[in-house]
Amino acid sequence: MNVLCFGEILLRLSPPSALRLVQANAFDATYGGSEANVAVALAQWGLPTAFLTRVPDSPLGHAALGALARYGVDTRHARLGGERIGLYFLEQGVGLRPSRVLYDRAGSSAATLRPGDLPWNDALQGAGALHWSGITPALSHTAADALREGIACASDRGITISCDLNYRANLWTYGQQPSDVLPELVRHCHVLLGDRNAFDRCLGVSLPDADDPELLRAVAKAYPNLRYTAMTRRGGASATHNTYQGLLTDGARTAASALYNLPDMVDRIGGGDAFMAGLLYQLLRGSAIDEAVDFAAAAAALKHYVRGDANLSTLGEIDALRAGNTGGAVQR
Amino acid sequence: MNVLCFGEILLRLSPPSALRLVQANAFDATYGGSEANVAVALAQWGLPTAFLTRVPDSPLGHAALGALARYGVDTRHARLGGERIGLYFLEQGVGLRPSRVLYDRAGSSAATLRPGDLPWNDALQGAGALHWSGITPALSHTAADALREGIACASDRGITISCDLNYRANLWTYGQQPSDVLPELVRHCHVLLGDRNAFDRCLGVSLPDADDPELLRAVAKAYPNLRYTAMTRRGGASATHNTYQGLLTDGARTAASALYNLPDMVDRIGGGDAFMAGLLYQLLRGSAIDEAVDFAAAAAALKHYVRGDANLSTLGEIDALRAGNTGGAVQR
Amino acid sequence: MNVLCFGEILLRLSPPSALRLVQANAFDATYGGSEANVAVALAQWGLPTAFLTRVPDSPLGHAALGALARYGVDTRHARLGGERIGLYFLEQGVGLRPSRVLYDRAGSSAATLRPGDLPWNDALQGAGALHWSGITPALSHTAADALREGIACASDRGITISCDLNYRANLWTYGQQPSDVLPELVRHCHVLLGDRNAFDRCLGVSLPDADDPELLRAVAKAYPNLRYTAMTRRGGASATHNTYQGLLTDGARTAASALYNLPDMVDRIGGGDAFMAGLLYQLLRGSAIDEAVDFAAAAAALKHYVRGDANLSTLGEIDALRAGNTGGAVQR
Amino acid sequence: MNVLCFGEILLRLSPPSALRLVQANAFDATYGGSEANVAVALAQWGLPTAFLTRVPDSPLGHAALGALARYGVDTRHARLGGERIGLYFLEQGVGLRPSRVLYDRAGSSAATLRPGDLPWNDALQGAGALHWSGITPALSHTAADALREGIACASDRGITISCDLNYRANLWTYGQQPSDVLPELVRHCHVLLGDRNAFDRCLGVSLPDADDPELLRAVAKAYPNLRYTAMTRRGGASATHNTYQGLLTDGARTAASALYNLPDMVDRIGGGDAFMAGLLYQLLRGSAIDEAVDFAAAAAALKHYVRGDANLSTLGEIDALRAGNTGGAVQR
Amino acid sequence: MNVLCFGEILLRLSPPSALRLVQANAFDATYGGSEANVAVALAQWGLPTAFLTRVPDSPLGHAALGALARYGVDTRHARLGGERIGLYFLEQGVGLRPSRVLYDRAGSSAATLRPGDLPWNDALQGAGALHWSGITPALSHTAADALREGIACASDRGITISCDLNYRANLWTYGQQPSDVLPELVRHCHVLLGDRNAFDRCLGVSLPDADDPELLRAVAKAYPNLRYTAMTRRGGASATHNTYQGLLTDGARTAASALYNLPDMVDRIGGGDAFMAGLLYQLLRGSAIDEAVDFAAAAAALKHYVRGDANLSTLGEIDALRAGNTGGAVQR
Amino acid sequence: MNVLCFGEILLRLSPPSALRLVQANAFDATYGGSEANVAVALAQWGLPTAFLTRVPDSPLGHAALGALARYGVDTRHARLGGERIGLYFLEQGVGLRPSRVLYDRAGSSAATLRPGDLPWNDALQGAGALHWSGITPALSHTAADALREGIACASDRGITISCDLNYRANLWTYGQQPSDVLPELVRHCHVLLGDRNAFDRCLGVSLPDADDPELLRAVAKAYPNLRYTAMTRRGGASATHNTYQGLLTDGARTAASALYNLPDMVDRIGGGDAFMAGLLYQLLRGSAIDEAVDFAAAAAALKHYVRGDANLSTLGEIDALRAGNTGGAVQR
Repeated sequence: MNVLCFGEILLRLSPPSALRLVQANAFDATYGGSEANVAVALAQWGLPTAFLTRVPDSPLGHAALGALARYGVDTRHARLGGERIGLYFLEQGVGLRPSRVLYDRAGSSAATLRPGDLPWNDALQGAGALHWSGITPALSHTAADALREGIACASDRGITISCDLNYRANLWTYGQQPSDVLPELVRHCHVLLGDRNAFDRCLGVSLPDADDPELLRAVAKAYPNLRYTAMTRRGGASATHNTYQGLLTDGARTAASALYNLPDMVDRIGGGDAFMAGLLYQLLRGSAIDEAVDFAAAAAALKHYVRGDANLSTLGEIDALRAGNTGGAVQR
Repeated sequence: MNVLCFGEILLRLSPPSALRLVQANAFDATYGGSEANVAVALAQWGLPTAFLTRVPDSPLGHAALGALARYGVDTRHARLGGERIGLYFLEQGVGLRPSRVLYDRAGSSAATLRPGDLPWNDALQGAGALHWSGITPALSHTAADALREGIACASDRGITISCDLNYRANLWTYGQQPSDVLPELVRHCHVLLGDRNAFDRCLGVSLPDADDPELLRAVAKAYPNLRYTAMTRRGGASATHNTYQGLLTDGARTAASALYNLPDMVDRIGGGDAFMAGLLYQLLRGSAIDEAVDFAAAAAALKHYVRGDANLSTLGEIDALRAGNTGGAVQR
Repeated sequence: MNVLCFGEILLRLSPPSALRLVQANAFDATYGGSEANVAVALAQWGLPTAFLTRVPDSPLGHAALGALARYGVDTRHARLGGERIGLYFLEQGVGLRPSRVLYDRAGSSAATLRPGDLPWNDALQGAGALHWSGITPALSHTAADALREGIACASDRGITISCDLNYRANLWTYGQQPSDVLPELVRHCHVLLGDRNAFDRCLGVSLPDADDPELLRAVAKAYPNLRYTAMTRRGGASATHNTYQGLLTDGARTAASALYNLPDMVDRIGGGDAFMAGLLYQLLRGSAIDEAVDFAAAAAALKHYVRGDANLSTLGEIDALRAGNTGGAVQR
Repeated sequence: MNVLCFGEILLRLSPPSALRLVQANAFDATYGGSEANVAVALAQWGLPTAFLTRVPDSPLGHAALGALARYGVDTRHARLGGERIGLYFLEQGVGLRPSRVLYDRAGSSAATLRPGDLPWNDALQGAGALHWSGITPALSHTAADALREGIACASDRGITISCDLNYRANLWTYGQQPSDVLPELVRHCHVLLGDRNAFDRCLGVSLPDADDPELLRAVAKAYPNLRYTAMTRRGGASATHNTYQGLLTDGARTAASALYNLPDMVDRIGGGDAFMAGLLYQLLRGSAIDEAVDFAAAAAALKHYVRGDANLSTLGEIDALRAGNTGGAVQR
Repeated sequence: MNVLCFGEILLRLSPPSALRLVQANAFDATYGGSEANVAVALAQWGLPTAFLTRVPDSPLGHAALGALARYGVDTRHARLGGERIGLYFLEQGVGLRPSRVLYDRAGSSAATLRPGDLPWNDALQGAGALHWSGITPALSHTAADALREGIACASDRGITISCDLNYRANLWTYGQQPSDVLPELVRHCHVLLGDRNAFDRCLGVSLPDADDPELLRAVAKAYPNLRYTAMTRRGGASATHNTYQGLLTDGARTAASALYNLPDMVDRIGGGDAFMAGLLYQLLRGSAIDEAVDFAAAAAALKHYVRGDANLSTLGEIDALRAGNTGGAVQR
Repeated sequence: MNVLCFGEILLRLSPPSALRLVQANAFDATYGGSEANVAVALAQWGLPTAFLTRVPDSPLGHAALGALARYGVDTRHARLGGERIGLYFLEQGVGLRPSRVLYDRAGSSAATLRPGDLPWNDALQGAGALHWSGITPALSHTAADALREGIACASDRGITISCDLNYRANLWTYGQQPSDVLPELVRHCHVLLGDRNAFDRCLGVSLPDADDPELLRAVAKAYPNLRYTAMTRRGGASATHNTYQGLLTDGARTAASALYNLPDMVDRIGGGDAFMAGLLYQLLRGSAIDEAVDFAAAAAALKHYVRGDANLSTLGEIDALRAGNTGGAVQR
């Protein structure tokens, strides 16, 4: 099944060698973004995946598309235009020092998208699924409108729609609250990913004393189109040592993945996107929810050991981890 | 004599090792900007120099101020505020491939300055000169207004005012032409730097068939407050091999510097700023125009061999070059 | 018109910072190869271009395909298989020290190709041209056979076939001489690139006292299918300062490009491939030979200022160079 | 309150990427030193801080001063002179391999200081505190004398004097023992930092069976001018996993900080200096000892995650750690 | 006592900064190999050690020899010849992601060695021991024969022969099984190192329910020439956190080393070679088995904190670890 | 013929990428020194060469010896001891900016050598030549004495003695002038290298109006033991573009080498040492002076294209240059 992911590709600038931003005299440069990360993972795993976005017609815009194409994502339908590429500066955390993200994406080619700018019909031609995240409608009124256009187009075609809520409080600066915007959009979705905070702030669903499966079911109930609703739970001993687990409900039953212990993490960014990709990969091929959530959590776990936003772990590596191979024997 | 420079500090991102922007997976990061480069050069040469600007209250804003303080510039009066640091991406040219600059400075903390944002009175306390460039009024209406406020404040105090026209066609996007804005501002100046193109587009002064000294005198005549008017002439055999010369008039007489041959250039950016700094350094201490223009051109010549925007050449190195030591004997 | 390029993608390992191989404790890694370089250039210029090859099913093989996909080359038809990726070590020359290439490609996935291994019919579906080079038949008997299979398939379809002779004496180690193999293959070609040495050693065409246009015409005459025959002339003042010129005949008339002076070269490898790509780009769109050879030479000239094997110069940059902009003024 | 720190700035040379000294073909270069590290931390936190030292009049000396000025330290009173900059080579330890420091500071511009070389009166003008460490009197007879001159000058002005004993057995090579020199100097101090070993070897105070609070009180009693006496306790599971705690007495009562667990440490050097700076920052503003020691320990804990000698952690980051945020959630 | 080590030197190419092979645009380059690693360790510890091998007569071959000579290994007898240097690509594992080795050594100068190619008599002149590993006979028929020649030559001279079985399933591709080849070769050995898997697959010795000491004794019994038989046990919590222990029997008694806990590992490759070197160092000087195995395990433990294949830990560092100094106090 | 070189090995620290010392946050580290550079060149060319010196018993001292051993120099007789390794900081010049050397070698293990510290008799066992330079006697009284001891020992054995005057004004700081010390030492030499300045300042030989051959003959006449006297002439268009030529007399006849034009130089340091090595290589094997001086000049020319102090050019490369291959054709 073909998947279309829609969102913004960001240039990520991160000081090497655990240096702080204030010290940096160089930045490692990679391209990523929540939806792009999902696309790269799916393409790597062999699912035909395309990406829809707008990037500036500049070397940086071209490089952003190339960064996806390099891993097999089809970028034919992406548009060139707008004024600048969105950026973020990432200070990688270690131990007791947390990671820090400075967004610099206002006015970007994606944030200034308007309805009509993108070739939704062409891009959805032959697609079986559309994936978006809660970041796009946070960027601007017009970006939210552009997303609405796409969701409508996908709905008309009866395509599976998935969403990762990805709540980022700092991004909602154009006068709307997530709870003003997201419920209407989520109503069209069939697969949803969030966490306690996102369900509360974006959808207004919170059950303070409820356990997580109960909360998941409450979300599923509030949005009857949802076939699958998932959440992740991250625990943190330090910036470089976390735990990770996913839960997934089909409304009737809730499955929990193994709980992964993640020592010596290399790159925390994109863990949730790897989980989202894992879910989609399995659900789109009809796997059971136990299989889907377990695969997704293992994929997410391995992401923490890949530098850059995207998960470059292979199906074989994910299977090996699920089979319990965590001891790090050298693969020769 | 104390000098106050006013302008924007930019984060410059440049791929290492002559890589192109579309290939880059890392960027060397330095901080610069036309007026900042003047400030660093003057401070390095021992002239007490301060810088007035606004940078975001973020690690990048702090680093920008630190990059000037590191070389002795007083940044006490700079303000923290606004949304983002201005950026530019620099693809260093080599041989037949020209350098390329991608500005990404819209909406920066400096571009959104408004009158009243900066402590002009405090900053000009004790200053003998104010330096600005034609870049600031190109950024926005309000930045032009903030500059006007500063120039008025300096004029009231009878301080020497200098300007480098620095004409960048791509920056004038807010609806005004340079010729709408700059003549009024230049009218208050005592020292002016430009080139044929800038005099024409910013001040409307062009004498198609005239020689350069005649043109300089025409500019000087059109702006009677000008005590010194200078221009630079750059010839290019390739992106890494230029020639460089400066001319300076006091209205009565015009002096030309030596013509420098610049093979194997390391960093082309900031050559004009190094010339401007050289002029100011000599003119503020009362040197004759021959001495001033020759020193300025030698300083500019050496800048092409310093990586980054600013000229870190010492007085001794400039003197040695003027004395003819171009052969590169090792200094032990 | 769609183009299919066929050949080997090599992992190139080159010490950074002008270090010698014997000193190196790190290598810059890029992927290239004569035909791959042609493909990247064509795709960058907007011509739909695909690449056919075999790479190992390993991270290095995947990276090799990604390196082409990143710049827009369609790699769908490439096959995974074989034992290893071909390598070459490149010691970049400077001044009086020449560049040095150590090939390590014996037994590679491409060198061990056999007829039947590649999906020629699928890959040539819709293609208007097939490009190959004299390197493939130098690798092994079976690789030569695989090439024969492709040429036959293209001939059957009446597709334009182009060849760059690319004579490398050291590669012909499996018992055949180029003159045993190439004439038969070239007989099917419509566009041919070589130089004096290649025409002599590969095709047995040499006219010792003839001028170059006469030689070109002799080659064209010997291979009546050739519509266009081209050659390049390189002069060398040093490893980092060359001159470059191309000639192109349609059998009737011969056009010569401008003669480019190339100071401060960054990367010598791939100059001829950039020329070949430039020829194809223009000839396939029906340009006159003067236009084609001039564009090709300008493209080749700019390649010397791009690190890596492939030419990442844009159409705009090539036009600017042809218009005489060699002086390296900063593009802002 | 203004603080003057006095001591040596060293150029630190450390192999990148956990390489050993014997393997290194490059060194990361930073500037630091115990007292300089205190100065940078205080300046970063907004306390006006100046540094007094002597560095050679060379690019390395200028860079050393710039490294402090960059973070807001006033270096106006520092002197240029002497023969060389002091160096140390640092091999960063990991896991079971300890860090290793090779000092190369004999004969440095600071080590050869003599009384009269420094402008103590100017530098102490307006200062409320003078900070020094036990390293300076270890360097040479004359450096110890220069320190005595400064302490006398500060005592005459009634300024608060603080000292970090910083016992380094290998530095005391000029014929004096720390116990010959330090007691007399510490007698003038009001704030003192040490550990069990330093109190014993430098001041001759040891109470073998006593607990740490008792020991601290014994030191305080032996030096009646001391208003605050502090010590740190470090435990080590490995070179990259320590524990850290501080104790502080005002003579009457002793407060202990939280005990920090420090996994995945990035840079062990300067932990004690960060603690010292934290103490001074709080005590000089009149904080209670519980607040002071807890802030100091949290500052020291975060230092282990900053590359280089100096603590670039902000007040906000220290507060967040004290509030229990150790889990490393990404700060967006 | 002089030691001669025989085997292949490989060029190891490893992406920096925990990048994956598929992402890498640069490789760190070092030279190593099981037997070469033993040689470097022994030479570093002061034992006169020589290395016998064949490398290509190219800058890479010269660099391979230089990499050993740099640490004191005598490479006088090594031969230049053959076609290529053997390579391996190493993707360093972290946390849950295991290390991955891609061998590319087929057809190398060492793999194509034949009897008569090496000057065994000269090289063994004055040697007291010959060391080889199970990798050489896995490379090719002829390499196995060349090894046989050397073992025969050493046996004739009555020299101590040691072997590390080093079982690598992927290397045995020329049609022989290790159990076809190794028993005959091991029969001449006096010191043997393996693990459960190697004893089983190479020698056919396995006692499923036996404890390790019993297994060791069984091996010793099956090969009566063996004076010392050793094995290592590695446990893995993750790719960067292992445990390590060695056992050694003289046939009569079995000694076990301390069990080392290895957090925050830097480089896993060469741990077993460091153990082997430690054994040889002690056994050749007549140490007791308890001393030998404990030294060897401590040496192996420290290897995990040295980048590159070889152990650059000093005798002093090994002693300090054995004395319990694992806490990582800075050595000044 | 075996050669023994005697002198100091320095750790050279040089900012990468043409950065200035005042900007550097990293240094490339290599080991070199005039006499060490001669030794490496000779060993690379196949002449058995040993090096005598003293380095500290530290990782840096060990690395210094390893840097020579890596290229085949025998360092067995070198002694470990003394306090520190000598350093120099090198700011590589480009274009109009000259290279700058900051020596930091006072008190080094070599500078504090005394007679009796080195095993001259062992080291000269079997040697046919001893090479020293004018740098050693510039370091200290005692180093000069140690050199005298070695020269005496070599003279007693009737060994060929060679000297490169290497005049560095800044090094002679211990109270003696070169002309107080060198004449007596040169009196024992058979091969001498200098230039106009060195002959004047070290030996007091100057003939203001004489041509160079005449001057050379005058030196040869003043020191009757000299069999060969040579000088070099360097011209400089810029720091990265020089010319280079050598002259050599046997007292009777003077031969001049080709005059080399050196564009795009990579590393200026060690050019003279490469010339010295070339002279020795040829003279010790009995070549005629024309051959010797031409080889030496070509070797020196190629050195300018090798990073680091030492010349890693091969005999084949030198021959190719002498044959006129300067055009930089790629060697495949």
